[in-house]
Amino acid sequence: MQQQDRSPSIQSRAHLTALACAAFEQAGATPEAAADAADILVEGDLMGFHSHGLRRVIAYAARLRRGSLNPRPQMHGERLGPSLMRLDGDNGLGPAVAAEALRRGLDLAGETGLGLVGVRNGSHFGAGSPYALRACNAGMVLVAGTNAIRSLAPTGGTEARVGNNPLVIAAPARRNPHFMLDMAMSIAARGRIRAARERGDPIPQGLATGPDGLPTTDPAQALRGMMLPIGGHKGYGLAVGMDILAGVLTGALFGTDPRSMLQQMDLPQGNGHFFLAIDPGRFMARSEFRARMDTLLNELLSTPAADPERPVRYPGHSEQTMRALRMRDGIPLPVGLLRSLEALARGETIAETATH
Amino acid sequence: MQQQDRSPSIQSRAHLTALACAAFEQAGATPEAAADAADILVEGDLMGFHSHGLRRVIAYAARLRRGSLNPRPQMHGERLGPSLMRLDGDNGLGPAVAAEALRRGLDLAGETGLGLVGVRNGSHFGAGSPYALRACNAGMVLVAGTNAIRSLAPTGGTEARVGNNPLVIAAPARRNPHFMLDMAMSIAARGRIRAARERGDPIPQGLATGPDGLPTTDPAQALRGMMLPIGGHKGYGLAVGMDILAGVLTGALFGTDPRSMLQQMDLPQGNGHFFLAIDPGRFMARSEFRARMDTLLNELLSTPAADPERPVRYPGHSEQTMRALRMRDGIPLPVGLLRSLEALARGETIAETATH
Repeated sequence: MQQQDRSPSIQSRAHLTALACAAFEQAGATPEAAADAADILVEGDLMGFHSHGLRRVIAYAARLRRGSLNPRPQMHGERLGPSLMRLDGDNGLGPAVAAEALRRGLDLAGETGLGLVGVRNGSHFGAGSPYALRACNAGMVLVAGTNAIRSLAPTGGTEARVGNNPLVIAAPARRNPHFMLDMAMSIAARGRIRAARERGDPIPQGLATGPDGLPTTDPAQALRGMMLPIGGHKGYGLAVGMDILAGVLTGALFGTDPRSMLQQMDLPQGNGHFFLAIDPGRFMARSEFRARMDTLLNELLSTPAADPERPVRYPGHSEQTMRALRMRDGIPLPVGLLRSLEALARGETIAETATH
Repeated sequence: MQQQDRSPSIQSRAHLTALACAAFEQAGATPEAAADAADILVEGDLMGFHSHGLRRVIAYAARLRRGSLNPRPQMHGERLGPSLMRLDGDNGLGPAVAAEALRRGLDLAGETGLGLVGVRNGSHFGAGSPYALRACNAGMVLVAGTNAIRSLAPTGGTEARVGNNPLVIAAPARRNPHFMLDMAMSIAARGRIRAARERGDPIPQGLATGPDGLPTTDPAQALRGMMLPIGGHKGYGLAVGMDILAGVLTGALFGTDPRSMLQQMDLPQGNGHFFLAIDPGRFMARSEFRARMDTLLNELLSTPAADPERPVRYPGHSEQTMRALRMRDGIPLPVGLLRSLEALARGETIAETATH
């Protein structure tokens, strides 16, 4: 029953990080991997990515116990060039692998101006924005992406054969919140469809198809069907492009092969990722780059708004605003999820299907 | 009058390349720059990008004569790291500068596995696909982009402050046509709106706004207004992301500063570009990479189609199919444009506003 309790409980970042950390360690993870994964997931909740935040501790812990996430991975980095590396994640905790890839990319960029790290044997790594923020805080520009379980149909097709593969582009500013684009290729997130189903509302035309590949406004049909990509063939193409960079190139699984985090719990997911870090300090003084970023972002923020109540923003602005508030006031978490985290942190097992 | 003649004339690639080359040389360009620019624009027409093909010879030649394209540029490459370079295009012919940046990127990738070339003092460089094809033919993966004149409104804004900045992602296959994504960030191209106006048809809701920033179905209003980006805030964010990589980072003009190719003929455009080349041979045997690409592309091509008459394709497929036909049969060009090219190739001047 506790899992049905969705009333919010406000918790500090530190407390939630400690809980998630303990949950991962109880499931067998090393302290280092547990700390990385806890930090990335808490960052997700800080910035409002609830679906890619602490609720993922449950599936990650279950996978650690089953061994489809490797509790003791031997991550192996191969230097493929002065600014190029492949990291084999050895199916370790997704965010721990991705955070290691990011660190190596930032290190390469610090050494050589540029660092591209391709990852194989990766897994679901949470939201992209926590990595974007780490890169921006290190003064670096980041382009990153991952492949994912197939969920989109190629344009004109009736079967899901392409992942809703996200792309991150981030760059640090000086006075403004950093620019942090973190987007999947579907027009709408599945969470929006689930919310419509719970309210009993139809969804707008053009967001999703049913399982037959035909357009639908019925959220139940849409959840069994496929989300539609942004700009039709453009979003489809972008999603495939991400898979080429993250999956085909790195030696990871690609196309229809990456496994579902929740439906194929006994199999490693086999995802590929890429992290490209660029040091703007090679092109100009870092302070000059940040000033140019502020000029760009100020132009956007000062655009006359269609609705004066809704000023123009840019990607990452509202997420960083929310983050600042939650750093000060705490993070609201459904009580059911909090109880699950507490149970996992004590070493108890909980229903793997618990959703919050 | 000849400029109104839009009946097609079929010409060989070689003849059109020679004409464009002569037109650029007559306008003062070096033989090397003229050859690069002619080849890239003819490639545009070969692949069906009429709006980014030989019709651009007219504006480029006019700019060369006015000096806003530098006929004798001193391109300067600064090595910023083992795999990192900035190229100052010195306002040379757009495709010649971009082709040089691509060559340097491919060279860096050949030497070091990876090459990122950021360009400043660039100009309109035609379509992206010709560069994609060159990279694929060299066995390399390419990610590239440019900034452009402001033409999109930030989401929620009523003023054009963001370029319709295109993105290219390309990778070579073995048996299939290469994957070559070449997309701008608007849902529809302006050419589609112009065609609707010429037919006297309304345009679908959701493609564009009038100059007041409000949605319109009137193509005349739309042409004075703004195109809408794919996925709303996502396309807006992607366009800004491209500007950061191509403009802010490289030291080029950015934001609302790049100049219009056609409206500000006396000013250099000041665009920035980026070309990121990756050698897949550093990750695995090149033949293995191409085989993996074929596996991915075959999965897409074999997706059951909603309409059996319209099989599923992927980005670059139809363009390369058309290219093969036109290599064999010749390129159809409006007669008016052909006459203009012939006049320019003889050293005559023509109306700079000629459109074909």
